[in-house]
Amino acid sequence: MEVNIRHLRNGTPRNSISLLDRGLHYGDGLFETILIHKNKCILWKEHLERLQDGCKRLALPSPGASILKKEAKRLIHTTQEGILKIILTRGESERGYAIPSHPKPTRILSLFPPPFYPKKNWQEGIHAMICRTQLSCTPDLAGIKHLNRLEQVLARSEWKDPNIAEGLMQSTENRVIEGTMSNVFLEKEGVFHTPSLQECGVAGVMRRFLLNFFEKAGWPYEVRPIIPAEVFEANSLFFCNSLFGIWPVLQLDHYKFCISPKIRKLQKCLPPGLFPS
Amino acid sequence: MEVNIRHLRNGTPRNSISLLDRGLHYGDGLFETILIHKNKCILWKEHLERLQDGCKRLALPSPGASILKKEAKRLIHTTQEGILKIILTRGESERGYAIPSHPKPTRILSLFPPPFYPKKNWQEGIHAMICRTQLSCTPDLAGIKHLNRLEQVLARSEWKDPNIAEGLMQSTENRVIEGTMSNVFLEKEGVFHTPSLQECGVAGVMRRFLLNFFEKAGWPYEVRPIIPAEVFEANSLFFCNSLFGIWPVLQLDHYKFCISPKIRKLQKCLPPGLFPS
Repeated sequence: MEVNIRHLRNGTPRNSISLLDRGLHYGDGLFETILIHKNKCILWKEHLERLQDGCKRLALPSPGASILKKEAKRLIHTTQEGILKIILTRGESERGYAIPSHPKPTRILSLFPPPFYPKKNWQEGIHAMICRTQLSCTPDLAGIKHLNRLEQVLARSEWKDPNIAEGLMQSTENRVIEGTMSNVFLEKEGVFHTPSLQECGVAGVMRRFLLNFFEKAGWPYEVRPIIPAEVFEANSLFFCNSLFGIWPVLQLDHYKFCISPKIRKLQKCLPPGLFPS
Repeated sequence: MEVNIRHLRNGTPRNSISLLDRGLHYGDGLFETILIHKNKCILWKEHLERLQDGCKRLALPSPGASILKKEAKRLIHTTQEGILKIILTRGESERGYAIPSHPKPTRILSLFPPPFYPKKNWQEGIHAMICRTQLSCTPDLAGIKHLNRLEQVLARSEWKDPNIAEGLMQSTENRVIEGTMSNVFLEKEGVFHTPSLQECGVAGVMRRFLLNFFEKAGWPYEVRPIIPAEVFEANSLFFCNSLFGIWPVLQLDHYKFCISPKIRKLQKCLPPGLFPS
């Protein structure tokens, strides 16, 4: 068996990409970051569904589930804990925005070390800040996990304090949207509320998992536009993504929140690997 | 002397980039496309100024003018006509949006063949269309020629008809902004008007050249928000960029325009290589 392969590019061990790739020139592509726990890709099916949904929206040929599964297995076969990142671009082209008539997408699977976060992020809750950088509203791209991520880069650069674990981003229309690397939920009188993502934001796999959970469990929830004032009126607040699961918020700027019993329960209903033992 | 080098990556002939580069992962970088005419980089100083301005706004270490000049010379030394593309990214990093504390930017200079456009684009004017894809408003990134270009890719994919030479893009706030690969000017009663780019759009080098020309020549002009209705009321309309100079518009969707004497005069005041002989 192969060992120590960190990247597969179109099925071949490579650690570079062509300088003509449209992923580099235009961010013309998509990505997924998937938790590997006990040698398994957690929420694999959900990540693949989102990737394929993104392919449809960007008119990008989809690589198909079986080839991705085969390559993921090949890459992670000795990995117990880590992250698998999939990048899919529209491949090489001539200079210019026009999409080639027969694009040959570039498929990259990469292995990264497991994320390190302090246990208190789950147990005691995190400190977070409200970012100045706003998310622009662009229905054509809203929800898609595409490679145009400068807004997130700028927002994340707003703090260096290691005690701040996440930043809350608003849209240019002054709606609360998401964290820099996660989605956000707030709880008011036992009801969970999360921003709708018709204008901007990334439709997170963990967000989808939680909405499905609420639906099946009969927990009341709302998906709708949320204004900043509502955040400060909430009883509880949490960020979520498919790498860390659920981080309750202890403090957002100078506003304090409690961790509700419902959030505690939710943390324990997540797929394996998403709550530290 | 070296021959047939097409790319320089941080000063070394290479045709690939690391799979860990933030240019690929997030579009975390900038670019310039520069016309080479008679072995000279046209509007070199202006391109460099914009690149350095972009570096400041993205807090990206700037490579410095002398190294870029040296590498450009090395790359184009046998090239009479062509395009030099410069891409500058924030380089490799760990996974995640956080900017590394000591970023090592990636500097790419690439040579492309000269653009081919029919002579009638300059002489008779072009057919253009109004794109459905909108530009999102994001003051933090407005004006910068960064690598997040999915909106342009989607807009350019709206037509395949080779008789359509450019598409006009509006913002999500319903203001006229620019072409997919160019800036736009309209002429009403002898005054040129071009959209202000505080909310979105790319501050083109040719746009800057023309505004400076108007200023020096004492031609009246306005830079301000422009609504779509004003385009249809204009006498003349043109697109401009630093590769093709000025293309007058003959027809935009089903609206027709004339080519004014002032536009004819402007076309002849451009730097060398920007008007076909």
